Amino acid sequence: MPDLPPTSQGPADEFGLIRWIRDRTPVDTRIEIGPGDDCAVIKPPPGERILVTTDMLIDGVHFRSQDVTPERIGWKAVARAVSDIAAMAGKPAAIVVAMAAPKGTTPDFAKAVFDGMKKAADAIGAAIAGGDISTGVFPLMLTVTVVGFTSNGRCVLRSGAKPGDAVFVTGALGGAMAGRHLDFTPRVEEALWLADNASVHAMIDISDGLAADAGHLAEESGVGIEFLESAVPLSEAARETARSDGRAPLDHALHDGEDYELLFAVSAQDGDRLAERSDPPVALSRIGKVVEGEGLWLLRDDGGRERIPPRGWVHRL
Amino acid sequence: MPDLPPTSQGPADEFGLIRWIRDRTPVDTRIEIGPGDDCAVIKPPPGERILVTTDMLIDGVHFRSQDVTPERIGWKAVARAVSDIAAMAGKPAAIVVAMAAPKGTTPDFAKAVFDGMKKAADAIGAAIAGGDISTGVFPLMLTVTVVGFTSNGRCVLRSGAKPGDAVFVTGALGGAMAGRHLDFTPRVEEALWLADNASVHAMIDISDGLAADAGHLAEESGVGIEFLESAVPLSEAARETARSDGRAPLDHALHDGEDYELLFAVSAQDGDRLAERSDPPVALSRIGKVVEGEGLWLLRDDGGRERIPPRGWVHRL
Repeated sequence: MPDLPPTSQGPADEFGLIRWIRDRTPVDTRIEIGPGDDCAVIKPPPGERILVTTDMLIDGVHFRSQDVTPERIGWKAVARAVSDIAAMAGKPAAIVVAMAAPKGTTPDFAKAVFDGMKKAADAIGAAIAGGDISTGVFPLMLTVTVVGFTSNGRCVLRSGAKPGDAVFVTGALGGAMAGRHLDFTPRVEEALWLADNASVHAMIDISDGLAADAGHLAEESGVGIEFLESAVPLSEAARETARSDGRAPLDHALHDGEDYELLFAVSAQDGDRLAERSDPPVALSRIGKVVEGEGLWLLRDDGGRERIPPRGWVHRL
Repeated sequence: MPDLPPTSQGPADEFGLIRWIRDRTPVDTRIEIGPGDDCAVIKPPPGERILVTTDMLIDGVHFRSQDVTPERIGWKAVARAVSDIAAMAGKPAAIVVAMAAPKGTTPDFAKAVFDGMKKAADAIGAAIAGGDISTGVFPLMLTVTVVGFTSNGRCVLRSGAKPGDAVFVTGALGGAMAGRHLDFTPRVEEALWLADNASVHAMIDISDGLAADAGHLAEESGVGIEFLESAVPLSEAARETARSDGRAPLDHALHDGEDYELLFAVSAQDGDRLAERSDPPVALSRIGKVVEGEGLWLLRDDGGRERIPPRGWVHRL
């Protein structure tokens, strides 16, 4: 796997990257073998399940390399993949990275991307355990696969929401593409806190937009969701973007995506308890409830009830 | 992870691929949650370690899409990634796939790639557990990550070869790019047989070429390797390619790559025992021995001893 061609045409000589990465890989008792053999070898914690997720980050689709430092590209690639582990209330452990780099990529650029990945991995307590590199005629593309574990045997799916459940979201939504999408920390700790302090029936991370991801959760659970207009937390960036493009801030919160906040459902009783807590590690907003049927609905401040299209993430670049 | 945008711009509407894949994912007791949630959930066998490897297969680098059926592309993407699990004498369990597809990729093409991946996964006893899809202005790129497990707690690294060990290779080498590189079955069963029937000190799969990969194994083990010219098994394709390009068949066997055979070191005693066995699941050739020092050496039939450059895989396309 971290098996690079030793030829002068191969990226090994261009970057010397695997050796460089190995020299920077700290000892991690979970990772018995890191970069440099055919596979990484990981010791699972007894009694836990393995969680695996893979995510691509592509120049021209998810970022523009000319506008962003390589460190932030690397950070985002890891952070958004790890966000899927958070969405299961899991703990990330090991990260393997495939980097497709355009011809002419400098060693310094590649190392800076890796530095960003490593900072993100350090921030969420995971280790970079291996990878693959190719160069050719294509845009920079990072495919990050994260191996994590359940915590205390718990695993929160998208499919467990029940009519009557309270629906919450962490943080504030909308306008992430103005900058936040490059620097967020995935909600790993927050998800573990939630799973420790409530029986979380269903959870998803908001990558495609509140409406789109709520649509996924509702569909997987076989339910509908009703949102309260006044309760959806609007980010400052949502308001700013709204000022410049004339769309409503709520529209940004519902449809922008790239928030990487958590959307989750708990029983109404657990919802009341969570709402009273003064110590959550992140702002929690009770934004609606699970209803029978299907689809997403918005209860307007003026009393109107309208269907929310499950439209979400669109290519922005 | 298998979280596709429901927008008309996204590949979900183009391919309907995730639903299609979910409908075709058979029940596998190891995969508790397959495609469709934020992560795949896998149950580890008690007492075993987790093996993880990631590999890219890129149009224009590793194959040419106009020359190859999509099924064979999918097969190769999975087979070469799984080959890294075989190289550890591990058992593949779950596969996650990131597909970057050029704009204009048809649903039929994408499904045919998936069919090839699924056939390869079925052939080696693994399940496709999740994935990610993006479309854009880039060549077809498949990043396959395989999660496997050690078998009976064993894990064969590259680093355990000792001076005096016998060096073996499975199958026959060279000329794989003439066609074999698209249809090979990774040596999973053969590696398990070897680990059951000998104490394998070190092993690697031959992807970059016998010389390059022997170089990796020698370097990781801190030893040299001496090959016997007459003992290196030449494939029919190596002889054919040699006839057409005038290079020696041995040169093809040493440097072509893409063979996905196993190179391994066992004690001289175990080597004698293996050589006497009539029941190995694949031809085994004792091609040399581990020596003190470093580097690769060729003992010519005429008695000469020369250094083999650790040159290997070069971009062929």
